[in-house]
Amino acid sequence: MNESERAYAPGLKGVLAGETALARVDGENGRLHYRGYPIGELVERGSYAQVAELLWTGEWNADASLSCAPLPAEVIDALRVLPSSTHAMDALRTALSVWGAVEGTLWPPTVEQARALTAVAPSALAAFARIRDGLEPVEPDAGLGLAEGFLYQLRGERPDPAAARALDAYFVVGAEHGFNASTFAARVIISTHSDIASAVVGAIGALKGPWHGGAPAEVVDQLHEMGDIDQAEAWIRGTLERGERLMGFGHRVYRAYDPRAAALRRVAESQAHAADWLQKAVAVEEIALRVLEEFKPDYPIKTNVEYYAAAVLQGVGLPPNLFPATFALARHAGWTAHCLEQAEVDVLIRPDVRYVGPSERPLPA
Amino acid sequence: MNESERAYAPGLKGVLAGETALARVDGENGRLHYRGYPIGELVERGSYAQVAELLWTGEWNADASLSCAPLPAEVIDALRVLPSSTHAMDALRTALSVWGAVEGTLWPPTVEQARALTAVAPSALAAFARIRDGLEPVEPDAGLGLAEGFLYQLRGERPDPAAARALDAYFVVGAEHGFNASTFAARVIISTHSDIASAVVGAIGALKGPWHGGAPAEVVDQLHEMGDIDQAEAWIRGTLERGERLMGFGHRVYRAYDPRAAALRRVAESQAHAADWLQKAVAVEEIALRVLEEFKPDYPIKTNVEYYAAAVLQGVGLPPNLFPATFALARHAGWTAHCLEQAEVDVLIRPDVRYVGPSERPLPA
Repeated sequence: MNESERAYAPGLKGVLAGETALARVDGENGRLHYRGYPIGELVERGSYAQVAELLWTGEWNADASLSCAPLPAEVIDALRVLPSSTHAMDALRTALSVWGAVEGTLWPPTVEQARALTAVAPSALAAFARIRDGLEPVEPDAGLGLAEGFLYQLRGERPDPAAARALDAYFVVGAEHGFNASTFAARVIISTHSDIASAVVGAIGALKGPWHGGAPAEVVDQLHEMGDIDQAEAWIRGTLERGERLMGFGHRVYRAYDPRAAALRRVAESQAHAADWLQKAVAVEEIALRVLEEFKPDYPIKTNVEYYAAAVLQGVGLPPNLFPATFALARHAGWTAHCLEQAEVDVLIRPDVRYVGPSERPLPA
Repeated sequence: MNESERAYAPGLKGVLAGETALARVDGENGRLHYRGYPIGELVERGSYAQVAELLWTGEWNADASLSCAPLPAEVIDALRVLPSSTHAMDALRTALSVWGAVEGTLWPPTVEQARALTAVAPSALAAFARIRDGLEPVEPDAGLGLAEGFLYQLRGERPDPAAARALDAYFVVGAEHGFNASTFAARVIISTHSDIASAVVGAIGALKGPWHGGAPAEVVDQLHEMGDIDQAEAWIRGTLERGERLMGFGHRVYRAYDPRAAALRRVAESQAHAADWLQKAVAVEEIALRVLEEFKPDYPIKTNVEYYAAAVLQGVGLPPNLFPATFALARHAGWTAHCLEQAEVDVLIRPDVRYVGPSERPLPA
């Protein structure tokens, strides 16, 4: 086949790079399913442990449980080496790289490896956050679920049940979302018969990019910046007139209202301590959607998952500099499930490339 | 566009996922160029420093130089934490993750970042190898080139010039090779506006897979296993009759003789101490090519780069467990050059996926 006859697809937009039985993302209609189950039902009636097991095994297990795992000493020692100014995503990436080195995980990836990696990641992030603050890491409590256990290890005390429930719902919503860049990076890596830790370490690196993992913390900043609600409309108009982006709105895939935003909004509404902040977020959303429609009438821009993710994470009391890494914790279930799926297909992911450089030439004398 | 109308390309074989001006890989004719310069000329008359600068900047700089960089204390401390049994690729991945955390590299990637990362990686691998052997790391010597400086830091003494030259030639040959899986992983990661260290850390994870970084050490094992040259043919026939792979032969892209193997064979032939081992390798190659042609007359399988890479690395005196990570060191120039190129294009790499899971269903009660 000649190069000129082949599909040229920079960014691979519209190219079906594989098959998945994990998530169905229907951007046109604003719907998301994990293995056929609607995200709204999963948030309302399921737990992250159930969702993770569903993604890994394909089965709904009502009794599924998942707790944070203790960290190998080497991981804690490596976290102590990092400067306290380290980006939380760099710390999580490093911690899991050390975990992979210590565990010596090998191809093929297994459900046990997926579970172990997903269970150790929140412990690693919590240990990093405590060490940088001059505190000692807290041993995980095997009696707590993953999200609750993460908050416990961050603070050294049990979180209130509503906060634990809200963060668990956030984890459900963030667990999986098709062939996004980080998941695709994980699949490329594992497709070489590398190991699951290498794949997840690569995925964390991809999620670190603001074009992918986004900047949920900036939603919080933005709401602070715009001042009182009666100043919000002028602030939003000014931002759009300067050609700047409004954080928390618009998504590459969703044209309709992001079903994850809808589910998280309901969760946020149930959080008593987030009340003031949430009230403002709801009011600002209404103004923003109205102004966006006026500015871009032909191109629907709706609220995205980050907007209410910020509300939930803020409500739960997480510091904004941990928001992206907390998203990474939630996505572990999906990344590792994709590793299992890729290993089933077992084909090397290696695209072609069009050469556009100089013609053959001799080396200068 | 309907899903069924879109190209379905698992593994992305034949899909042009982007453009590059770095390497031209002509598998049909067994030719490889970096920015138009034939690999044979680059090996014969160029150095890795010149090749790396050429890849990063597009310019041939006869005065280019590149030495190993000193490691930040945090990287050495993190390497001390790892068990001595750690896979060298896991150690390199971890060391560069720590380096990225300490340096706080940010988007967009720059030539300075590319140079810094490429210069620090050999120091990290050498420090790991010494620490696991119970030795202290050796400070880099800024007066030595990258390959020579790597050998110096491994052993604490200056290598002989022929070995340094041979390893430099290996680095030239391994520097770049289009959209292979590790390079593609790096481009996916940096395409999210993540940082160059995250991209290279992901690439190392991909290269770790034996389907990509291969198993040059197994070429050595195989030559040992087959015994004397007069037993080689029987051993090769037995291996192929059992349906097993012959290491060092066959490549996804090259149908003709791999030009990198040809260049490295010439380098190996110039290494005096590799003489016995090389003589055997040359004799075995001849037998293997003859038997392979007999077994697969319709599908040309030629010597690949690993075969003579093993000869050079063995000749230079590297332990086989460092072969894959040494390949990673060489590929740093290419990975980081691709990061620069991807940042110029600046498009998120995010393919689509075909959903093949269950239809919508309610959660079990």
